Amino acid sequence: MKIPEVLQIEVVHRAGSLAQVLGVVAEAGLLVENLVAVERGPGCTIWELTTDLDEDFDRSQLDRISDLPIAQLMGTSDRVFTLHEGGKIETSSRLAIESDQLLRDIYTPGVARVCLAIRDDPALHRQYTGIRNSVAIVTDGTAVLGLGDIGPVAGMPVMEGKAALFQQLAGLSGVPILVEPGSVNDIVEAVARIAPTFGAIQLEDIAAPACFAIEQALATRLDRPVLHDDQHGTAVVALAALLTATRRLDIDIAGCTVGQVGLGAAGIGIARLLVHHGVNRLLGSDLREDAVSTFTDLGGEARDLEAVMAESDIVIATTGVRGLIRPELVRDGQVILALTNPDPEIEPEVALAHGARYAADGKAVNNVLGFPGLFRGALDAEATEFSREMLAAAATRLSELAAGNSLVPSPLDREVHVQVAEAVASAARGAQQTPLYH
Amino acid sequence: MKIPEVLQIEVVHRAGSLAQVLGVVAEAGLLVENLVAVERGPGCTIWELTTDLDEDFDRSQLDRISDLPIAQLMGTSDRVFTLHEGGKIETSSRLAIESDQLLRDIYTPGVARVCLAIRDDPALHRQYTGIRNSVAIVTDGTAVLGLGDIGPVAGMPVMEGKAALFQQLAGLSGVPILVEPGSVNDIVEAVARIAPTFGAIQLEDIAAPACFAIEQALATRLDRPVLHDDQHGTAVVALAALLTATRRLDIDIAGCTVGQVGLGAAGIGIARLLVHHGVNRLLGSDLREDAVSTFTDLGGEARDLEAVMAESDIVIATTGVRGLIRPELVRDGQVILALTNPDPEIEPEVALAHGARYAADGKAVNNVLGFPGLFRGALDAEATEFSREMLAAAATRLSELAAGNSLVPSPLDREVHVQVAEAVASAARGAQQTPLYH
Repeated sequence: MKIPEVLQIEVVHRAGSLAQVLGVVAEAGLLVENLVAVERGPGCTIWELTTDLDEDFDRSQLDRISDLPIAQLMGTSDRVFTLHEGGKIETSSRLAIESDQLLRDIYTPGVARVCLAIRDDPALHRQYTGIRNSVAIVTDGTAVLGLGDIGPVAGMPVMEGKAALFQQLAGLSGVPILVEPGSVNDIVEAVARIAPTFGAIQLEDIAAPACFAIEQALATRLDRPVLHDDQHGTAVVALAALLTATRRLDIDIAGCTVGQVGLGAAGIGIARLLVHHGVNRLLGSDLREDAVSTFTDLGGEARDLEAVMAESDIVIATTGVRGLIRPELVRDGQVILALTNPDPEIEPEVALAHGARYAADGKAVNNVLGFPGLFRGALDAEATEFSREMLAAAATRLSELAAGNSLVPSPLDREVHVQVAEAVASAARGAQQTPLYH
Repeated sequence: MKIPEVLQIEVVHRAGSLAQVLGVVAEAGLLVENLVAVERGPGCTIWELTTDLDEDFDRSQLDRISDLPIAQLMGTSDRVFTLHEGGKIETSSRLAIESDQLLRDIYTPGVARVCLAIRDDPALHRQYTGIRNSVAIVTDGTAVLGLGDIGPVAGMPVMEGKAALFQQLAGLSGVPILVEPGSVNDIVEAVARIAPTFGAIQLEDIAAPACFAIEQALATRLDRPVLHDDQHGTAVVALAALLTATRRLDIDIAGCTVGQVGLGAAGIGIARLLVHHGVNRLLGSDLREDAVSTFTDLGGEARDLEAVMAESDIVIATTGVRGLIRPELVRDGQVILALTNPDPEIEPEVALAHGARYAADGKAVNNVLGFPGLFRGALDAEATEFSREMLAAAATRLSELAAGNSLVPSPLDREVHVQVAEAVASAARGAQQTPLYH
């Protein structure tokens, strides 16, 4: 794993001094991500150099900067940890409560009237509360990113990140809900009991196969949209990337053999969407028997890793295992999406060097492109569940918005999420609806 | 119930015209709360007149404003509903996510490192997530304000109000959690399962006697502060008011007979705190046998309403029944706190007119004075539960801060909540701790 770090370095004003510092950095094998002069003094300048360190990086190599007569390493600060200080989200009042009148209006006694109005006409909660604008982000921490079962509290930074992105990209209130691990039934009961709080439920980083059963039970039971993002959010963005790649390569995806390496939550979500979309053949490999059996039930064919790589035009990897795909397995002209975060099954540049025509990892094909617009659209359309048509519409729109060499658009472009939400809402209002679960 | 309403009235520029309008308003029996000139035109001015209407107010009386040759009622807008439009709170990102670098730092791949750090040292969640700064506001909607069992969704405006106040007054993230009504065990299991999400749990508007069992079960089971606000928040503010009143009247509270009318959640919370504080005698009345039995178990004596009123120096009413205390029951020199919101058991002015020495309703003795500082203090001290000492410290500090003729300070004074938090945290760090439940 890479550790982002910022080095503060004081460098004497002398021609060539910065080059010497960068020479030491280069000898340490570090890539310079950014370099900013933060303070210019009379005799020297303090630079902040941003780089990524390997977890097992020998930090004593950094001392050699200070061994230079013209430089001094002032300190290091871990940017990522600094940004997480105090958490990334907060609940805030939409009103500044500065007057007694306002206090009486929004709390007692005024609020009583709004309560009674909702009691008499429950649909008014849509107008007078934030329920319809909120999404629970539920995890038991059993499959956080590619890190495995680290528990719900250790998963909180991911949930807060999703909540921050919901607000920034789609104007929704994301509310992390950490659930103590337990049986499928335990988790379903707890989430169902608090479900009235939220307009929709996003399940997140829950391990397979429990994630399938939990999603199915909640989606069937609740009258509001439920979506396991690791399955469907990832699937939507992966399908968008595939649509773009095949369009550019002038390949008809329906005629392709698609191979999936890894059939966990993401893999199965992608498989479901590919079956819905239509592909020539769908091959898949996984070490877990139950995963393979879920996959073959959907119409996929079981293979081992080598056979998947040998037979597929397009490979989608979602294993959580860094470097699983050995470069020599890459077939000429293959399209490879290695989606495990933070470290993919094969680095895109390695895949390309070994003959792949297109290659991307999970940093580009990021589910942050999907979930904000998926939920915004479902809530805007007052949908009571997600349908395959809604997911497919999101993928199609995302692919249409991809420009230049990118397989998908930039997630920081707010308009992208507006467009996805619009496509999803429009699909939700359409006549044809195939629910995720019947 | 009173309905706050804003009348927009266009009034011709002529001496005496505004007086004529106010004459019609007076004939309709309406009290003018506020009057603002919002738009001054060449020939007339548009005024916004704020008033409270009774629920059964005959609105045709307002038409008589337009019957005046010099005025026109342009419209009415219900201020309270307008303020609730879209809900009162939102989850927001503490960072503006505008760059790819920031996205990578706070979401994948950067966030993975923070997750792993917390996995390896769970206490780090205090530093790198918002958990320690958050309070769940949990209700099943079975006893919302004085409105009774209106269900959790209809109770949401109250929960959002509390969340808004947590942020505005104490810098905490309040997170409403609406639970489907069920057995005590159902609710305890659901809340316990999601408890890792929050630094503390506030139970709110849950009916007696379930509220006692739910609070006890959660407080005993969880390693974080749990408080049923309707019991203890109200009790803290009621005790503060009592301390102030008795100090001003130069009465030793320990020598008083205190009578409680209503022994639901609030009544029992007050009784517990009074027993802890020490009073001469504690009398109480309630129609429910289980309530009376809980009360006598604490050391109180059962009476009927009339006997409580006749024998008590101080009366505290928390029944949810508007106008329950008939004016003729008031004893000369009594201190009366009629705390039911929005309509008290006896209006303070009526009680004073019938001989009470001090009287207040729940609008002045408002639990908003208590809960923000109680939770801020408990979280700041890293307390794992609330103790009676923490509650008593909050009441004492609140009473010390009361100025002028007020029994308690203004809840809009931010310094009050800082002071309460400081007193609570200090008590939490003290040697003597009597947990609410053993």
